[in-house]
Amino acid sequence: MSFIEQLKAAWRHSNSLLCVGLDPDLRKLPSAVLSSQSPIYEFNRRIIDQTAAHCCCFKPQIAYYAAHAAEAQLEQTIRYIKDNHPERPVILDAKRGDIGATAGMYALEAFSRYGADAVTVNPYMGGDTLQPFLEYADKGVVVLCRTSNAGSSEFQALDCAGMPLAHRVAQQSLAWNTLGNIMLVTGATYPDEIGEIRKLVGDMPLLVPGVGAQGGGLRGVLENGLTGDKTGLMINSSRGIIYASNGDDFAEAAGSAARQLKDEINAVRAAL
Amino acid sequence: MSFIEQLKAAWRHSNSLLCVGLDPDLRKLPSAVLSSQSPIYEFNRRIIDQTAAHCCCFKPQIAYYAAHAAEAQLEQTIRYIKDNHPERPVILDAKRGDIGATAGMYALEAFSRYGADAVTVNPYMGGDTLQPFLEYADKGVVVLCRTSNAGSSEFQALDCAGMPLAHRVAQQSLAWNTLGNIMLVTGATYPDEIGEIRKLVGDMPLLVPGVGAQGGGLRGVLENGLTGDKTGLMINSSRGIIYASNGDDFAEAAGSAARQLKDEINAVRAAL
Repeated sequence: MSFIEQLKAAWRHSNSLLCVGLDPDLRKLPSAVLSSQSPIYEFNRRIIDQTAAHCCCFKPQIAYYAAHAAEAQLEQTIRYIKDNHPERPVILDAKRGDIGATAGMYALEAFSRYGADAVTVNPYMGGDTLQPFLEYADKGVVVLCRTSNAGSSEFQALDCAGMPLAHRVAQQSLAWNTLGNIMLVTGATYPDEIGEIRKLVGDMPLLVPGVGAQGGGLRGVLENGLTGDKTGLMINSSRGIIYASNGDDFAEAAGSAARQLKDEINAVRAAL
Repeated sequence: MSFIEQLKAAWRHSNSLLCVGLDPDLRKLPSAVLSSQSPIYEFNRRIIDQTAAHCCCFKPQIAYYAAHAAEAQLEQTIRYIKDNHPERPVILDAKRGDIGATAGMYALEAFSRYGADAVTVNPYMGGDTLQPFLEYADKGVVVLCRTSNAGSSEFQALDCAGMPLAHRVAQQSLAWNTLGNIMLVTGATYPDEIGEIRKLVGDMPLLVPGVGAQGGGLRGVLENGLTGDKTGLMINSSRGIIYASNGDDFAEAAGSAARQLKDEINAVRAAL
């Protein structure tokens, strides 16, 4: 089953557009897991079990593992999801991008080594550098388009021969999408941009970071980003869920936060 | 000593503008190292010893290690350079880029975990996402500007409100460069662009991939990229050096290839 088929099934079965971001900052882990030999994995495992029912996918951010030489715990985390929640696809947030031969190595990293179902990539170097990822027909490739950070306008909003750079990336993504496995990142902090990009790319799934801690509102995201069948979005929350409590109840608190955000999304969805 | 001071000292002492790229593809390693417990490290170590006299810096490409869960061998490789050739700075080629908190994790990965002296980064998300790297005043931050791949024109050459996107990245890099630790990537395959970017950024060091296997010529690079004192460039070669032979003499062959490329560069330099 391809990533996008997996995602559609997960949207259906979970009735959720929520993506749970697994960005475990070692400095913020609750004491309940610090005595474990694999504290990051232990933290993730318990959060995954509590949130899986409320989300359509998981998105571990590799930087949080790489900073602490914890790649093995990232491998364990993804394997745990595959073994215990196989209906929840995993997007490895790595924002990779490099020339062909090197991009091929990054594709191996994401898809073979880690077994991720999708990976985020950076389009700055051009479509030829994304080809080694796109060749994996059953995997998803999530291209940075309009990111959620305050400075994303610096280049992404520049007028590039008649349209903002981000729109040009969206347009080119359609051309690259011969195997139907491309998606885009569009930040919740720029809801109007989500609408513009949605018009350009039809029903292509959008990964939306930036709700909660980064300040993006749900209504704007949903009004602008939903497809005709009221799906089409993976709305990511990381800090708001995984750090909902730093007590012994951290996993249950994460589960409650995920359920609450799912319900908020669904309430707005139902009203649209 | 800051990265750029280290680099200037290395240019002086080595009389070389050559950067040796350490991109060890497991499928191409000579049988002489395959029986080692750490074949990538063993391959690198022997190449480093043979090429250090002929280059100004080393540039390991992290994707080749990450694809094979060989991060420990990358750590060993960088430590070996620090211990045995401390006058040769190490650029970690990782092309990282992400929002602030995550970029901070990538900076930890490059500078603390691996102990690299510089790291390559991707500017697509904007200057705020590079800030966590730039705060390390003594480290170098090498921003992708005009990359060497065939498809780099797709976005980098687009006219963005009056100038190509790559030139705008160069211009913004000057604004970001308050601590004087920024450099740019400018591919050898676009020598005229190297000239345009050199005019925009003055004496800022440029990392130039794409000579040799990728087809870039030396004369165009040097004519367009040298600074007034005939330095300013780190001209990278990876495959042409590290795979010069796949016999037992691979390290000596790499040393010869590095010396030859250094000499070719210096012959053109002397004639300009």
